[in-house]
Amino acid sequence: MEDGIAARLSEMGVDLPGQSNPAANYSNSVRTGNLLFISGKSPLETAGKLPHGKLGKEFGKDEGKELCKSACINLLAAIKQDIGSLDRIARFVELQGFLNTTVDFEDHATVMDGASDLLFRVFGGEKGSHARSVLGATSLRKGIPVVLRAVVELEP
Amino acid sequence: MEDGIAARLSEMGVDLPGQSNPAANYSNSVRTGNLLFISGKSPLETAGKLPHGKLGKEFGKDEGKELCKSACINLLAAIKQDIGSLDRIARFVELQGFLNTTVDFEDHATVMDGASDLLFRVFGGEKGSHARSVLGATSLRKGIPVVLRAVVELEP
Amino acid sequence: MEDGIAARLSEMGVDLPGQSNPAANYSNSVRTGNLLFISGKSPLETAGKLPHGKLGKEFGKDEGKELCKSACINLLAAIKQDIGSLDRIARFVELQGFLNTTVDFEDHATVMDGASDLLFRVFGGEKGSHARSVLGATSLRKGIPVVLRAVVELEP
Repeated sequence: MEDGIAARLSEMGVDLPGQSNPAANYSNSVRTGNLLFISGKSPLETAGKLPHGKLGKEFGKDEGKELCKSACINLLAAIKQDIGSLDRIARFVELQGFLNTTVDFEDHATVMDGASDLLFRVFGGEKGSHARSVLGATSLRKGIPVVLRAVVELEP
Repeated sequence: MEDGIAARLSEMGVDLPGQSNPAANYSNSVRTGNLLFISGKSPLETAGKLPHGKLGKEFGKDEGKELCKSACINLLAAIKQDIGSLDRIARFVELQGFLNTTVDFEDHATVMDGASDLLFRVFGGEKGSHARSVLGATSLRKGIPVVLRAVVELEP
Repeated sequence: MEDGIAARLSEMGVDLPGQSNPAANYSNSVRTGNLLFISGKSPLETAGKLPHGKLGKEFGKDEGKELCKSACINLLAAIKQDIGSLDRIARFVELQGFLNTTVDFEDHATVMDGASDLLFRVFGGEKGSHARSVLGATSLRKGIPVVLRAVVELEP
């Protein structure tokens, strides 16, 4: 039987991709007590390719919002792989967004809403609401436009 | 009766502004166990306007230090709103500063002292001292010069 | 008698430098419950000087990897000073890397491996593996090329 959160994602048309473990000496996530710290996640690949470019140049703010939603789906997929079921999340705690931007980009909030809105819809206001911070990076690995990093609380 | 920390802030001439909840689907702060994770906070508005510009260009390092102190006041206001009284803080744990800078700015430490010195004065060395990290961002939301994000430990 | 982790570091030829406390009103690290939050750490000095410059300009990716390893050694030295023995680390939890880069740098993962590989060798896969995130900063304090910030879990 599918878990409740996975079912809600399906209803929304969101498929969680399979995850590979990092190629290097770190983990998708690490649990300490009831907290799970998750590694920085990129948007999903499209046609086998990671998106490449900067917000304010190659991508506008609405595209950025979609890319941020996509990175959030990737984040959920990593959590699900590591803990088995998203129903084990007691609540989202913190979301940090690192956006690859031009020097004069100012629409970070709109972009982050792509992730925040998804979490709110999937987990509801009590579990899904999170502390949020965001900054414009001058570069990100492989030229990707967005990285999301999170902390969640798990059921005991 | 005013709480002890609020009284100390008053003596220092620091007024904590009222806080509105974020317009989007996230929270000013999230509690998990005894930890409170706080969303990234900007400096306070002056004459109804958020400060706008980069350290190293529109703002020098001394102005940056004042802006960082202002963001720290905003952070304390958000905490107070969410937990009722700043006396419930057992200790500051971590402060991260994201500074909107030019590519050759190097005075991040001086700027961050604006926040660290305030916390030390208000909470004292035992409770106020914190782990600190800071970086220069290529852009921040709405063009603000400083964002502060924090983790604090609450009394059980 | 030397502790086990210190002995392994010695075998690898890694000397942990003595640490001074920060000159300002913050701490090398703060403990809350079993978690230790560590302040952002630079690479070690060479001939009494901090490295200065950007990845993608003054430093290539292989030099960046060495600088990141060096910052990780600095981080371990700070932890050891604050908690006495690295054997008290139950596990690494999170590592965040802030790299001072040009706008088109893309080799963040290679650079971070300098730290991740060290942690894996020193602590082994169970304790040393960590959640990892990294971004390119437009500037860092004093023009240093790398800052590492971490969270570790301590033995109860």
